[in-house]
Amino acid sequence: MKHKIAISIGDLNGIGLQIALQSHEKIKKICKPIYCINNEMLKQGAKLLNLKIPNDFEIHKTNGEFEIKPGQVSKKSGKYSYDSFIDAINLTKKRKTNAVVTLPINKESWNKANIDFKGHTEVLRSYFGQNAIMMLGCKKMFVALYTEHIALKKVPKKINEEDLTTFLCSFYKNVNQDNIQVLGLNPHASDNGVLGNEEVEIFKAIKNANKILKKDIFKGPVVPDTAFSKTNRKSCKYFVCMYHDQGLAPLKALYFDQSINVSLNLPIIRTSVDHGTAFDIAYKDENINQKSYLNAIKEAINLINSKK
Amino acid sequence: MKHKIAISIGDLNGIGLQIALQSHEKIKKICKPIYCINNEMLKQGAKLLNLKIPNDFEIHKTNGEFEIKPGQVSKKSGKYSYDSFIDAINLTKKRKTNAVVTLPINKESWNKANIDFKGHTEVLRSYFGQNAIMMLGCKKMFVALYTEHIALKKVPKKINEEDLTTFLCSFYKNVNQDNIQVLGLNPHASDNGVLGNEEVEIFKAIKNANKILKKDIFKGPVVPDTAFSKTNRKSCKYFVCMYHDQGLAPLKALYFDQSINVSLNLPIIRTSVDHGTAFDIAYKDENINQKSYLNAIKEAINLINSKK
Repeated sequence: MKHKIAISIGDLNGIGLQIALQSHEKIKKICKPIYCINNEMLKQGAKLLNLKIPNDFEIHKTNGEFEIKPGQVSKKSGKYSYDSFIDAINLTKKRKTNAVVTLPINKESWNKANIDFKGHTEVLRSYFGQNAIMMLGCKKMFVALYTEHIALKKVPKKINEEDLTTFLCSFYKNVNQDNIQVLGLNPHASDNGVLGNEEVEIFKAIKNANKILKKDIFKGPVVPDTAFSKTNRKSCKYFVCMYHDQGLAPLKALYFDQSINVSLNLPIIRTSVDHGTAFDIAYKDENINQKSYLNAIKEAINLINSKK
Repeated sequence: MKHKIAISIGDLNGIGLQIALQSHEKIKKICKPIYCINNEMLKQGAKLLNLKIPNDFEIHKTNGEFEIKPGQVSKKSGKYSYDSFIDAINLTKKRKTNAVVTLPINKESWNKANIDFKGHTEVLRSYFGQNAIMMLGCKKMFVALYTEHIALKKVPKKINEEDLTTFLCSFYKNVNQDNIQVLGLNPHASDNGVLGNEEVEIFKAIKNANKILKKDIFKGPVVPDTAFSKTNRKSCKYFVCMYHDQGLAPLKALYFDQSINVSLNLPIIRTSVDHGTAFDIAYKDENINQKSYLNAIKEAINLINSKK
């Protein structure tokens, strides 16, 4: 039987609904999607997009009604996208679905709707009271972020042996990969302490984690600027990065359109597209790239199967 | 007439000499290379490599003699590579050559030889008493580094309106490009101040520089993690980065083997390969990638021609 996947529909003023409708034929071959949107909003959106609603487009009714305004930041649209996400989480928590896949929300719209989270991952952390790990990438390369949405100046202070050891052990348990590189923080991974000293903590955390796991899973601290060179990527596909742009700038340089976002270390499985609402092209462009969404669905299925 | 280029031979225990010998036939078609190495060392190296010395391999005699030990950190080899570099600078300063192209040195070997510089660029800064700008890349994309070899925790404090304005104006005068993006420091370029505040300084510096140059040359602060996406690279080829790995990790993910290093803002032209001494394969591998060296020569010629 196909796995059931709850799709949170994202910001209806953005490109999410179009992706959901246009990908449905492909998606339904590999899973049973349940879209968190009600009939009224679905009809309104499909009409604006000039797209037919497939007969087997199964919905879970997310309450609310408002006028879709393509490309606009909006309180109502923000609230609806949040409610759709919460419905998807609830369905999955109650095991009515096996995973959540999210379409993009708009942070400014959440802000207008007084939703105090910076994004999906923060909601999940608060909902489950657990420290979700954010991993982004595609089959060719995944980056896990040790720190995420914080100012760069706050990053060095966050790097300590204890927290990083915990992070590494949790990460390993979630991805179950035997070859993971951990990046240094400083240029040249500090050149033996000449350019900073945080690598000492990283080195200790790697050593601890390998000792706890009884296997040399983690290597590093790896020199950050060559970590993602073609040669090194051949030898390793999983990287732990110390900060947001250390992992995401190289990832997006290489694989922006096919990358996805995965929340690890939670009681439920959640994957997501790695792009935004693209307000500039919402309800305007017939050919929106669906690779990231399709990859998010595929990875959700992988994770369901590997958790069994 | 072909331009004369002084080649500093790099660490003779590394891969530099092999690249110089094997590329000579190609190089001599586009310039007149003068290699800073003496006959004894040249003969010793060529013999070890089992390569013939081309008849028209013109040298400038850099004094010194020692036994080449492939792949070894060595005081003597460190000193020789430094002397070769100084000879190349002197030749170019005296206008006997039109530019310097450098092969890789080993920092540890310099250290052993009590040479107190972290690399070529630092030597140039000290020699000329001028603030060289480090730019790396290839035809498809160049990144200039506002800060270089400093610990990451020191970067945020370095970002101020005045210094960055000076940097931007100098950079423009050297590259003479009309479309340059300046990256933010923080994730999402701070999301309007939510994740750090250094973007305020960056924004002011961009504004100042454009005002001084009387043209909208600089754009930004650009979101760092999407700056190097395929789409954005189509719209811009020159990027100013706030720190070492912000520019170099994406660059090396995309174009490691063809990238070069250019020193701007100096009285002489200097370009360099963007790789190291590769001690692990020195005097062992017949097929060493020469793209970076060839591109360094080509860019030196470009810069000579554009300065005329």
